Amino acid sequence: MDGITRVEKALAMAIEQHLAAAVAHTEAPGCPPRLAAALRYAVFPGGARVRPRLCLAVACACNEDDPGVADAAAAAIELLHCASLVHDDLPCFDDAATRRGKPSVHRAFGERLAVLAGDALIVLAFQTLARGVASAPHRLGPLTMIVSRAVGMPTGIVAGQAWECEPHVGLADYQRAKTGALFAAATVAGATAAGFQEPGLWRTLGECLGEAFQVADDLRDVVSDATELGKPTGRDAVLGRPSAVRDLGLVGAQDRFEYLVTSAVESIPPCPGRDDLRALITMESSRFLPKELARRAA
Amino acid sequence: MDGITRVEKALAMAIEQHLAAAVAHTEAPGCPPRLAAALRYAVFPGGARVRPRLCLAVACACNEDDPGVADAAAAAIELLHCASLVHDDLPCFDDAATRRGKPSVHRAFGERLAVLAGDALIVLAFQTLARGVASAPHRLGPLTMIVSRAVGMPTGIVAGQAWECEPHVGLADYQRAKTGALFAAATVAGATAAGFQEPGLWRTLGECLGEAFQVADDLRDVVSDATELGKPTGRDAVLGRPSAVRDLGLVGAQDRFEYLVTSAVESIPPCPGRDDLRALITMESSRFLPKELARRAA
Repeated sequence: MDGITRVEKALAMAIEQHLAAAVAHTEAPGCPPRLAAALRYAVFPGGARVRPRLCLAVACACNEDDPGVADAAAAAIELLHCASLVHDDLPCFDDAATRRGKPSVHRAFGERLAVLAGDALIVLAFQTLARGVASAPHRLGPLTMIVSRAVGMPTGIVAGQAWECEPHVGLADYQRAKTGALFAAATVAGATAAGFQEPGLWRTLGECLGEAFQVADDLRDVVSDATELGKPTGRDAVLGRPSAVRDLGLVGAQDRFEYLVTSAVESIPPCPGRDDLRALITMESSRFLPKELARRAA
Repeated sequence: MDGITRVEKALAMAIEQHLAAAVAHTEAPGCPPRLAAALRYAVFPGGARVRPRLCLAVACACNEDDPGVADAAAAAIELLHCASLVHDDLPCFDDAATRRGKPSVHRAFGERLAVLAGDALIVLAFQTLARGVASAPHRLGPLTMIVSRAVGMPTGIVAGQAWECEPHVGLADYQRAKTGALFAAATVAGATAAGFQEPGLWRTLGECLGEAFQVADDLRDVVSDATELGKPTGRDAVLGRPSAVRDLGLVGAQDRFEYLVTSAVESIPPCPGRDDLRALITMESSRFLPKELARRAA
């Protein structure tokens, strides 16, 4: 196992542990048991945990001085991502029957508990941040602002989802809000958690990776099969949603993906772990692409 | 105009101003305009603003040293209350056609924007807290914990709403989570914002007032007409929800209300503005009751 793989595995374990600790706080005696079950179901087992891994990788590259702070930020970001998936899958939006290879939360627990599970996960994210940043109280305000901007109005993921309800929308605005915002929060929060002097310098990395991830998702929606993906495919066309493949074609979208990953790697600010982070991001990004296209590119 | 009325009016104005400032932050150019409109519609014009007024009254009684902190806490609590109303009114829950005398958010903007408006309001609440408490960063962590506990799992208003999805539920557990939690947060947050040494001493005041408010709401659901109330009546019976009137009868529920208000007033901890606060709460509580019953009692 090489160095990067070892770091990767350690990060992945840390994320699961911190998510488990956060979710455990919601399960005290006296809680409504079905909502508690729905909340756990929405978080475990997880997907690729791309956002929290990115957050921790950036904090690590910045030589973080208090790992608990980055762990809390990473967990908060993943909880918010899980919340958005639960609400996006609701009957009034995508009406997705499956997610991460199992029934979506509203199919498994009903629509009411899906609405409440999403709400509870949003609250839990901010609570997890406050609890985890207790050792560095001066970082809580900036981290709360970074995370809330990425999720709320006017340009966070909630805004991204709302663009699906507007008659006119530009692909870039839509993707920036729907996916880019939380990726940008992951990098900026990672740097902030680590005490990096100008955390805003990390925004471009997150934005480029977020758009690359979205382009890869659009490609996956077209070329993958549903079993591999764990959710239905071909949904963008059915739902008339903006898609890089629809706008740029299959080859154009792949070119855009490559351009974004290169821009991401080049944007990494000077920091102690810059070389390792570049290698990690190049390796990780290749996993974004659907297997069919990755094989074709190889 | 007597002293208490003057304080009341000043508090009410401060609340509207701070809510307006918070909501304005969501309306930057480039935001999805229909979601922005739905969010504003959900907050203005408001209801009685009982929770934020309680928060500010407690902070005031504690001789707050930094009013901006209490203002932020009060606004955050009201935004969370508005969020809960939007989601509680959704078709999968109460399917309420009206709220505060106008169409509910999902009737006016559609179900998708109602889900997103609720989400955005939750996020805005935590953002408002972080923004407003910047002058006293050591108070942000405690305030975030107080507010998030009141809203999330295991015992906040989300849990209270989830009890409606469980087969068995006790009236006290249900009311404590659904209404009491946010009232308790209002008093404890008000004291915390003001730098009161043992803010937990203020919990009983909030819990008693929260239960009193819920009992009054149950009474209102039975005796008021829908025009006066601004929302449909008789819903508890239709939806089979727990209700103090169903459990205790009309007279028993009124007795319970009187007992709770007396307990609330007696629980106020020693503080500089104790006498004024006692008078204020006695006066305010009488307004909770439906006009028919208040007239009968007079």
